[in-house]
Amino acid sequence: MSEDKHVKLFALNSNLPLAKSIANELNMPLSEAEVKHFADGEIQIAIGESVRGAEVYVIQGVADPVNTSFMELMIMVDALRRASAATINVVMPYYGYARQDRKARSREPISAKLLASLLEMNGVNRVVTIDLHADQVQGFFNIPIDHLLGAPLLANYFFSRNLVDDDLVVVSPSHSGVSRARKFAELLKAPIAIIDNRDDAKDNSVPSSIIGEVAGKRAIIVDDIIDTGLSMSLSAAALNFAGATEVYGVATHAVFSGDSVELLKQAPLKEVIVTDTVLVPEAKQFTKLVQLSVGPLFAAAIQRIHTNQPIENLLRSEDNEDVQL
Amino acid sequence: MSEDKHVKLFALNSNLPLAKSIANELNMPLSEAEVKHFADGEIQIAIGESVRGAEVYVIQGVADPVNTSFMELMIMVDALRRASAATINVVMPYYGYARQDRKARSREPISAKLLASLLEMNGVNRVVTIDLHADQVQGFFNIPIDHLLGAPLLANYFFSRNLVDDDLVVVSPSHSGVSRARKFAELLKAPIAIIDNRDDAKDNSVPSSIIGEVAGKRAIIVDDIIDTGLSMSLSAAALNFAGATEVYGVATHAVFSGDSVELLKQAPLKEVIVTDTVLVPEAKQFTKLVQLSVGPLFAAAIQRIHTNQPIENLLRSEDNEDVQL
Amino acid sequence: MSEDKHVKLFALNSNLPLAKSIANELNMPLSEAEVKHFADGEIQIAIGESVRGAEVYVIQGVADPVNTSFMELMIMVDALRRASAATINVVMPYYGYARQDRKARSREPISAKLLASLLEMNGVNRVVTIDLHADQVQGFFNIPIDHLLGAPLLANYFFSRNLVDDDLVVVSPSHSGVSRARKFAELLKAPIAIIDNRDDAKDNSVPSSIIGEVAGKRAIIVDDIIDTGLSMSLSAAALNFAGATEVYGVATHAVFSGDSVELLKQAPLKEVIVTDTVLVPEAKQFTKLVQLSVGPLFAAAIQRIHTNQPIENLLRSEDNEDVQL
Amino acid sequence: MSEDKHVKLFALNSNLPLAKSIANELNMPLSEAEVKHFADGEIQIAIGESVRGAEVYVIQGVADPVNTSFMELMIMVDALRRASAATINVVMPYYGYARQDRKARSREPISAKLLASLLEMNGVNRVVTIDLHADQVQGFFNIPIDHLLGAPLLANYFFSRNLVDDDLVVVSPSHSGVSRARKFAELLKAPIAIIDNRDDAKDNSVPSSIIGEVAGKRAIIVDDIIDTGLSMSLSAAALNFAGATEVYGVATHAVFSGDSVELLKQAPLKEVIVTDTVLVPEAKQFTKLVQLSVGPLFAAAIQRIHTNQPIENLLRSEDNEDVQL
Amino acid sequence: MSEDKHVKLFALNSNLPLAKSIANELNMPLSEAEVKHFADGEIQIAIGESVRGAEVYVIQGVADPVNTSFMELMIMVDALRRASAATINVVMPYYGYARQDRKARSREPISAKLLASLLEMNGVNRVVTIDLHADQVQGFFNIPIDHLLGAPLLANYFFSRNLVDDDLVVVSPSHSGVSRARKFAELLKAPIAIIDNRDDAKDNSVPSSIIGEVAGKRAIIVDDIIDTGLSMSLSAAALNFAGATEVYGVATHAVFSGDSVELLKQAPLKEVIVTDTVLVPEAKQFTKLVQLSVGPLFAAAIQRIHTNQPIENLLRSEDNEDVQL
Amino acid sequence: MSEDKHVKLFALNSNLPLAKSIANELNMPLSEAEVKHFADGEIQIAIGESVRGAEVYVIQGVADPVNTSFMELMIMVDALRRASAATINVVMPYYGYARQDRKARSREPISAKLLASLLEMNGVNRVVTIDLHADQVQGFFNIPIDHLLGAPLLANYFFSRNLVDDDLVVVSPSHSGVSRARKFAELLKAPIAIIDNRDDAKDNSVPSSIIGEVAGKRAIIVDDIIDTGLSMSLSAAALNFAGATEVYGVATHAVFSGDSVELLKQAPLKEVIVTDTVLVPEAKQFTKLVQLSVGPLFAAAIQRIHTNQPIENLLRSEDNEDVQL
Repeated sequence: MSEDKHVKLFALNSNLPLAKSIANELNMPLSEAEVKHFADGEIQIAIGESVRGAEVYVIQGVADPVNTSFMELMIMVDALRRASAATINVVMPYYGYARQDRKARSREPISAKLLASLLEMNGVNRVVTIDLHADQVQGFFNIPIDHLLGAPLLANYFFSRNLVDDDLVVVSPSHSGVSRARKFAELLKAPIAIIDNRDDAKDNSVPSSIIGEVAGKRAIIVDDIIDTGLSMSLSAAALNFAGATEVYGVATHAVFSGDSVELLKQAPLKEVIVTDTVLVPEAKQFTKLVQLSVGPLFAAAIQRIHTNQPIENLLRSEDNEDVQL
Repeated sequence: MSEDKHVKLFALNSNLPLAKSIANELNMPLSEAEVKHFADGEIQIAIGESVRGAEVYVIQGVADPVNTSFMELMIMVDALRRASAATINVVMPYYGYARQDRKARSREPISAKLLASLLEMNGVNRVVTIDLHADQVQGFFNIPIDHLLGAPLLANYFFSRNLVDDDLVVVSPSHSGVSRARKFAELLKAPIAIIDNRDDAKDNSVPSSIIGEVAGKRAIIVDDIIDTGLSMSLSAAALNFAGATEVYGVATHAVFSGDSVELLKQAPLKEVIVTDTVLVPEAKQFTKLVQLSVGPLFAAAIQRIHTNQPIENLLRSEDNEDVQL
Repeated sequence: MSEDKHVKLFALNSNLPLAKSIANELNMPLSEAEVKHFADGEIQIAIGESVRGAEVYVIQGVADPVNTSFMELMIMVDALRRASAATINVVMPYYGYARQDRKARSREPISAKLLASLLEMNGVNRVVTIDLHADQVQGFFNIPIDHLLGAPLLANYFFSRNLVDDDLVVVSPSHSGVSRARKFAELLKAPIAIIDNRDDAKDNSVPSSIIGEVAGKRAIIVDDIIDTGLSMSLSAAALNFAGATEVYGVATHAVFSGDSVELLKQAPLKEVIVTDTVLVPEAKQFTKLVQLSVGPLFAAAIQRIHTNQPIENLLRSEDNEDVQL
Repeated sequence: MSEDKHVKLFALNSNLPLAKSIANELNMPLSEAEVKHFADGEIQIAIGESVRGAEVYVIQGVADPVNTSFMELMIMVDALRRASAATINVVMPYYGYARQDRKARSREPISAKLLASLLEMNGVNRVVTIDLHADQVQGFFNIPIDHLLGAPLLANYFFSRNLVDDDLVVVSPSHSGVSRARKFAELLKAPIAIIDNRDDAKDNSVPSSIIGEVAGKRAIIVDDIIDTGLSMSLSAAALNFAGATEVYGVATHAVFSGDSVELLKQAPLKEVIVTDTVLVPEAKQFTKLVQLSVGPLFAAAIQRIHTNQPIENLLRSEDNEDVQL
Repeated sequence: MSEDKHVKLFALNSNLPLAKSIANELNMPLSEAEVKHFADGEIQIAIGESVRGAEVYVIQGVADPVNTSFMELMIMVDALRRASAATINVVMPYYGYARQDRKARSREPISAKLLASLLEMNGVNRVVTIDLHADQVQGFFNIPIDHLLGAPLLANYFFSRNLVDDDLVVVSPSHSGVSRARKFAELLKAPIAIIDNRDDAKDNSVPSSIIGEVAGKRAIIVDDIIDTGLSMSLSAAALNFAGATEVYGVATHAVFSGDSVELLKQAPLKEVIVTDTVLVPEAKQFTKLVQLSVGPLFAAAIQRIHTNQPIENLLRSEDNEDVQL
Repeated sequence: MSEDKHVKLFALNSNLPLAKSIANELNMPLSEAEVKHFADGEIQIAIGESVRGAEVYVIQGVADPVNTSFMELMIMVDALRRASAATINVVMPYYGYARQDRKARSREPISAKLLASLLEMNGVNRVVTIDLHADQVQGFFNIPIDHLLGAPLLANYFFSRNLVDDDLVVVSPSHSGVSRARKFAELLKAPIAIIDNRDDAKDNSVPSSIIGEVAGKRAIIVDDIIDTGLSMSLSAAALNFAGATEVYGVATHAVFSGDSVELLKQAPLKEVIVTDTVLVPEAKQFTKLVQLSVGPLFAAAIQRIHTNQPIENLLRSEDNEDVQL
């Protein structure tokens, strides 16, 4: 792919290691773009090489600090459009604000839609992303979204470690995540259980009840995002108390904000398995953290998009049949 | 409100009884509009009175036949806009295609978003609806959506019938409906259980397993839509088999397609409680069907929208505190 | 053309025989798309093969049942756009609602414009159609419209049957169709006459007067659409009464709604010559009906569009000079 | 109406006498706006009074010189929008380019649609116009169009002059104008005839044939626009030759370009009756020209639009029943 | 104004003291809106009172941290639009990114336009701002911009301090600011001079030359923004060296980034006069800093906008005639 | 480039010699398009050859008569879009209305933005232009603008004539043009001076003062446009009076309206050096006028755009380093 002068790969600042991993997989250089941040936060971007007529891929997650990451992306897109890029494809491993996807109360914004509208209005031709908080976010866009799945990659980890057997149970840490847990459980041919946190529980002192059988089982808690770590660590404690023999935590996006890492370290979790969609800084790495790279997955997607091949077969576990996109 | 000559209420063909109920509650007449259907399906609309400068409410669900209902609505909106209506408010008790709200497989449409985009593009200023299949559908619009809730009305039925006690369990008939069941359960201060249908179950012969305690309890299965009736009747059978003492079926939207009525009649359901968002023709009514009217709720919403009052307090059960919108 | 993997031809349900005829002419297969209709009318579409980067042609008339045909088309276009089709070209042999092209009375919609706006908003790149009810409908679009003409095909029929001589008169069945009749008459080098139906004639008992000479002549009534058949059969009767020796009825679009076929059979028409832009079901075929296929014409248009050749020379009768597009 | 400070009436340069007539009828002043034209054609507009929150009516025909008239209008609209006018209503007595309403040949523009799109895109909220060349031009807009009719005014002239009797015939000077002539004939309860000019007649030496009876009758040629005067004068000559006793020419829009006035003077026309939608300069006035003012009609329309009254009853001849809009 | 329940004033976080000053001037409360910032930067907004049908003013400068300030504003606007606000007026005392208003080099973005497009696309109805870096930024919007002027306020300071006499010279610190200095000089009836910094001067060691007479004069350096303070302090040094008797620094927007305050303190400036469009934190205040409040000016503008009065007369110095807007 | 059948070059009427020069440089023919002007100003365009799938360049300045030139362009673009051109690139050597780029007073339009919006809305994909009056006009567009620079061409003239030495001074004829003069001066390594015309000078009798040293020097007055010639001739007179040895006038755009040529002839200008972006008719040519052609520059830009090469290196003087775009 590197010979084709019409494809250009740019990385902004939110997750440079992942961008490099994608570029390596594609055997392509990252094109030059200088991004300056002024004292008051203003961002200045200068693209170092011509992009006229090019099929451009910009790799940028909307991750901590989300507003700055997003504005970097928007300004870059404005520059690319004005510089006559043929198509602008945004590779967004993490979609910040995705959880603000509905009005939960009167007079709330729907920020996930706002981001979608802004990207579209700015001339983006395509978004490539992974494991959106809700599948419906795809419908916030009119442009094509290539929505990758992290589940096959994460499930393969358990197969490769020989952790898949009849004593397994997949656990949803919340009511809203049951479908996600159900799909993961199907990859592992396992039953599911649910942590039953009542929304009206005003404090966390109330012990969670568990719906489903977990005693004597190896439990895998599956979520899309680990943010504050509270949900994951309380779920682990509840499972431990209920007699689970081992507890694993699994999530695609390792946001790890605030004290999350401390909470995860102390929780009765044997391992926490995440991907590199969000950059986890050295200081937030810990012993039982396992990070799997989505670089090859994104690289394969870009390759297929460029050559007009379908991406369906990327959405499959090695040890399993097709999973729904 | 009837004195205010600037408000006009129109009803199209999908649910005339509900439209009349709303008009009665508002003490307003339905304005005249003749809708003709030609042999090949073409619709012709003639609005019988001036709408210049009027705040217009068009009551039309996108229900069976959904495409015709939707095109009636679109053509009416075109006529109203060209006839200089000041604002066009669509009161849509049932939002057809709402379940096509994401790409479940490669190369699928997102028809729920398509409808939203078409309404918006056509000049609709506001949509008033109830119990969307997924809350995220609100984000498919940029215009304001007033999203009403049927749960307080449906929950009140159980309070009014003295069916709320400690032996109650609220049941979600699917993984994706657990949050809905959880919210309903909170109104009734009840625990929840889940019917565990694996997506890979290729036929319905596989008995569903149930996650959670149901034996010896009065079970209320809560869903948003009863369409084919399959999910509701199989869930009832499973609960019955698992020892539930009584099973009630609850849903906002009574689509009742195909053999659904027969299935519901034969299922071990004591009552099926629905609303009148979808017109249930005489032939589909049956003894254990209870239909509650959302007419007063929609009328109150229109009243508040017209007078710029918040609708928050409409979203509340009489016997309970606030529910999230 | 079949070797070019970038072109894909899809057919929806409104006129499968014509779609197959077009595909045959192009020596291309129809690509796979499964269209399901649920009991309440909801349409579900699953495209069976990748369309990434493809130049897609969707063949679908907006014909009986027009609303369903139109929504099939819209949902298909949504799916194609989200599936990264490079361009979406709609081949629409019949444009339903085309007669609702202006406000004839206060507070009417302009449904033909509504359809145009909806197609455009949905991301359609081009519409290929034939014999629009009014040429001005082209201006309802901002995207390119390739507007084919049926007149050369229909006129050639008369030449091939040796029916063109000095005793011919071309007749417009209405005031608004005089220009259409005039153009057809020029192809046949014939004079014209007009059936003079007053708009204020409240019933059909009033005999129509005829402007122009028809006695002792072979008369060809030319219209764009035969819908109820009333206009065509009354015109034939009037011409017969006025002394025409033979009467032929000609129209591009055979909508044939209601009792039209019965009316046409009984009318003093020697032949009724139409095209296959609208599917005429077996039950509506009759002895004196002649159906000419526009398949080769549409196939040639697609071929030229794909290869960036002009379509002008398609708009010409074999025995005549250029006709205006 | 003059007391209502929220309505402002502006006139640009294309037809000041008509603007003044409208203002007089409304008993309102024309608001101040200075329009300067620089040597190279650039237009500079300065609005002399605040329009914040005002319902503004700009009176400007797109008439000779049409491009300058149109750009005056567009620049004025830009200024009004930026100056916070609440609504911008364009009163356009003559719609230049209206005859370019379809692609008559390959690769032609549809300039009438271009004008519509530009006005709409610029923020115009409504257009008030009269006797569009084709009714379909209404569909070029998505905003409301109030389309007035000149026929009742023009027909009343014949009643008031006692020229309506059984010997009258209304004549369409072309095939495309037959519907217009038919409607005018209905107001006068008269039959029609048609001048049969073949499109392939390359020169004007070919005598036109006439379809219908005209000998011994008073003929009224009805058109929407008199531009070059060729069609009107040739038609008059043909009618004269065919034995018409008197010939009147009627049209709404007196464009009178080139030698038209000379042609009309020399033609066997008893009178030429037009309106003042287009300013006829002193030099182009002639003895047999009768000009009727549409000022009262437009004033009444503005009055009704402002007070949200329907305009239907403006579309009626005094001596006749309703005419279709 | 406070009685009018239809106006609501909201303040976000960028400049609360100015918002309060505006509210006080208007004798109105600031409405409630809770703005939360999560650890990863995500912003959550909950509006505390109904805004249905309200004319809403949101006071928010796009100032340090500019991306966060801007996203706060965008999310607030999304929430207001969905909550049925009648109009959304953004009061933006400082327009971050305004200096990125053109492509100075190939492949640069035009971020000031990006912000304008995003605000407009999000449904903002009006922007009220002051002293844009370039007047042309007004043209980046299609919606009305009310552009206030700080010059009269700043000039009045010199009159009120009796610093205006014949020995005054107004100095532009750059080539691009000469027009601004010229207008300020006209308010003070003073001549101008220009600091001649060559763009190709790669370092700041090169002493600037001065065009114009400054020796023995009181010099007032006029700029729109003091950001790094470099331009202001070097200009002051150059003027001091060239024999100016006293040097004053004047600017509307006190961005004061990096070491600017230290530079200004050390520069030979007698006073630095700025406004409060940007919040200057306590730590950045210094003895010779004079801060004038634009609160009354913005309050008066809001008052006039609400009552549809022109704002022209706000754009005037007390001791001078009109200044161009 | 001439072999590539996919590129088509069209010229409208505003500057045919320049269009031919561009075509010659590219070794390509100008494609056929017939532009007719009717008596009332209506323009009719017929494109003489197929443009399906072509990359089209339309060469048209918006110059005297600006409204007609602009409408010619807009109608041509409409025709090209409907005729399925792949991309429409407007080559606009002169951008009329560019000086109306901001609201200088209340209630003014921003006509330069209006033109940009109209072009963009009409489907133009790119604008290639030169020396816009203000760089910010680039931001009026969202589509790519290739903005060429005339300065290197004009500066080279002085090098080639050996007029560049230490006695040179570059003069800005106004405050707003100082940046332009500064950049030109850098190409010639010269200092600058400024003509100080106060905006409140109500008549031209007030002698202008000059800021900077000009006595004994060769002065080059640099402007972007010479329109009325007043600014250039008064500046020349002032410089002459102040002791300049020789005065040259330089500008890119020779609008030369009204009496400008007479003024320039009489002014103490040794030469007036302009380009051919605006057509200077024979009658306006004069002895000391030097016209340099931008044809090669535009041709090179088109060549680079077509082949996706950057245009940066076109923006450079032969004797100098890079100039900012």
